[in-house]
Amino acid sequence: MTEQTRFDLPQSAIPTAWYNALPDLPEPLAPPLHPGTREPVGPDDLAPLFPMALIEQEMTGAPWIDVPGEVLDILRLWRPTPLVRARRLEQALGTPARIYYKDESVSPAGSHKPNTAVPQAYYNKLDGTKRLTTETGAGQWGSSLAFACAQFDLECKVYMVRASYEQKPYRRMLMETWGSTVVPSPIDDPSHPGSLGAAISDAVRDAVGREDTHYSLGSVLNHVLLHQTMIGIEAKEQLAKAGESHPDVVIGSCGGGSNLGGIALPFMTDSRVRLLAIEPSSCPTLTEGKFDYDFGDVAGMTPLMNMYTLGHDFVPPSIHAGGLRYHGDSPVISLLVHAGRMEAAAYPQSKTFDAAVQFARSEGKIPAPETGHAIRGVIDEALRCKEEGRDEVLLFNYSGHGFLDLSAYDDYNKGRLLDA
Amino acid sequence: MTEQTRFDLPQSAIPTAWYNALPDLPEPLAPPLHPGTREPVGPDDLAPLFPMALIEQEMTGAPWIDVPGEVLDILRLWRPTPLVRARRLEQALGTPARIYYKDESVSPAGSHKPNTAVPQAYYNKLDGTKRLTTETGAGQWGSSLAFACAQFDLECKVYMVRASYEQKPYRRMLMETWGSTVVPSPIDDPSHPGSLGAAISDAVRDAVGREDTHYSLGSVLNHVLLHQTMIGIEAKEQLAKAGESHPDVVIGSCGGGSNLGGIALPFMTDSRVRLLAIEPSSCPTLTEGKFDYDFGDVAGMTPLMNMYTLGHDFVPPSIHAGGLRYHGDSPVISLLVHAGRMEAAAYPQSKTFDAAVQFARSEGKIPAPETGHAIRGVIDEALRCKEEGRDEVLLFNYSGHGFLDLSAYDDYNKGRLLDA
Repeated sequence: MTEQTRFDLPQSAIPTAWYNALPDLPEPLAPPLHPGTREPVGPDDLAPLFPMALIEQEMTGAPWIDVPGEVLDILRLWRPTPLVRARRLEQALGTPARIYYKDESVSPAGSHKPNTAVPQAYYNKLDGTKRLTTETGAGQWGSSLAFACAQFDLECKVYMVRASYEQKPYRRMLMETWGSTVVPSPIDDPSHPGSLGAAISDAVRDAVGREDTHYSLGSVLNHVLLHQTMIGIEAKEQLAKAGESHPDVVIGSCGGGSNLGGIALPFMTDSRVRLLAIEPSSCPTLTEGKFDYDFGDVAGMTPLMNMYTLGHDFVPPSIHAGGLRYHGDSPVISLLVHAGRMEAAAYPQSKTFDAAVQFARSEGKIPAPETGHAIRGVIDEALRCKEEGRDEVLLFNYSGHGFLDLSAYDDYNKGRLLDA
Repeated sequence: MTEQTRFDLPQSAIPTAWYNALPDLPEPLAPPLHPGTREPVGPDDLAPLFPMALIEQEMTGAPWIDVPGEVLDILRLWRPTPLVRARRLEQALGTPARIYYKDESVSPAGSHKPNTAVPQAYYNKLDGTKRLTTETGAGQWGSSLAFACAQFDLECKVYMVRASYEQKPYRRMLMETWGSTVVPSPIDDPSHPGSLGAAISDAVRDAVGREDTHYSLGSVLNHVLLHQTMIGIEAKEQLAKAGESHPDVVIGSCGGGSNLGGIALPFMTDSRVRLLAIEPSSCPTLTEGKFDYDFGDVAGMTPLMNMYTLGHDFVPPSIHAGGLRYHGDSPVISLLVHAGRMEAAAYPQSKTFDAAVQFARSEGKIPAPETGHAIRGVIDEALRCKEEGRDEVLLFNYSGHGFLDLSAYDDYNKGRLLDA
């Protein structure tokens, strides 16, 4: 009798409400501040950028938010996603721990990002928006928004960090295939390699300047993490199907915080569950940053948020996990770490690729470099369990596949990977 | 009430036997002939290349073959695969047809190929083989065998068509990440761009020359199509779950014939079902080839097979659907076409990309260029249904994703695609 490794939910079991962590946080979230007046921002301050439905979701104290049917119709193309027990990895490690991962790589764009791209496109469509702008680094977010805009017939313009635009053209091609326009950022300085913070400035400037245009952000903000909670809500139900009462540790990689928040927040109020953020040691926001107000972008155009930050002018070294190269972090995630509810650890790039390749050879799938960080964390927890003889349940977010990051694996295979 | 679009089977419903089409063919298959004597080959003639279990599967008249538990353990990492109703594509086309696709892109290598790579590696391991050689064009097959060999700790050496090795390095990186060795072919002529037929010669020569080594082929042969029948067996059960008594048309792209055979053969004995092969008009084996004995490779080292062929020295133009660039075809598929049980149609490259992009924008997923051929076929059938006002059930094989073929989409998006 062979043992089950996949715990699927029927399409009809897709969550119909998002979990709002705000009312359950250990302490209230400090409000964002207006970049000019440094006073708390109100809904009207955000109206040039976002439709009112998203602004309400950003601030609401309601514990659950209904998911519109039109959004569910599209999310159902790939949701519920599989929960997989990584038995072959467990065997390779010789650990008594039981390792589960939530496979968010099955979406059309290959990551968890469409979970929020779809509702963001929907609420904008409903609001009469004709056009969305956004920024993207390696392209995970930009391609997800391009997919979502194609579903709702919205125009989409993506400002892509120039270094990625030139060196990693594949997600640019993906965005264009879904009908979006992609330009390298910063637009006013063709000699600059660009940064996420600078691309945010470009996209915000474009949106503010046009009546028909709004701006869309793929991480950091409360409503983004809210949309991602589908991941953890499904995982909880699937773990129960697997006969597990609760995970002992929930692990995710952390850049802006959305994939980690998505899987971790639904377990936040369960004190039996440790929550663990993994970040690159070259961009150690949670482990070495300052907990303070800072801008979300380089130019200082966004509201100031209370978060862990390395300074909005910090330029992280060019690692392959482009999605984790952000100077700040989600205020919700930052608060959880600051309050001691969530732990954080940082790893150099080479250690995360060691883990990613071990996963690829045992479980078969090639993870995105960002996901490699979560896998590094889970392998180290599994080895701790082995040392301590503990059969803990470890749950991590398999946030995306690495099919568009194979040049990074080539660098690793050929010994060219640098620990920037 | 939203309508269901995904018809999933539980992991426990994975087929435990493969369907053998040989005894049900409209007429007996002509035997392969020895390249030297031109006499029918016996099992011993094939023993330098394949383990006896696979040779038996190549020739058996048994209607069903049990799948070993060790093979099921690995296939269950992604099987059963989803059956999806493409409602958004139906809407975009305004067709009364109901379009279903079997999503084989969810395997670790991103295509249907691991369905046979895993049992081939398994039977070799069981036979004491230490090392496998194979050829690959764009790399779909080579990467699948690399994945399978990693699961059974077998060495794997892949001879990759030189033009692909140099211009499309990503699947090479995938193979290396799974621990395989990849070299450009032909090995004895670094100035030659290579071909599938020449790479087969290289791989066969290597295997014949070493005691510890066998050869592995990813399409054409009977045992390969046998392993792929999981696709159609699952699809039949899933269509029943969707409330459909049978498909009216089953459609697949056709290069060597394995993805088409996999989905079509389990419907072969149902006379209500039309079977349809789609091939590139630049390599029109079924539509313009000769039904005759020919070699499988350029050098004339393989047995002669009775099949549709363009001549074993035919070099197809360099289209993006590398998996469809083969001078011959599966003898089983060839026989079905010759006997009038299966239809075939050929399309130029640009028409298949029109279809692939229409699919990507409506259903979200980016298909492999090979899969784009099947989608062209299904769209044209759906438009026929619209014209005739018929609500037929169309089933096609979504044989692989296009994440590693985005440069082809870039050519299409930029108007650079040639109808070679």
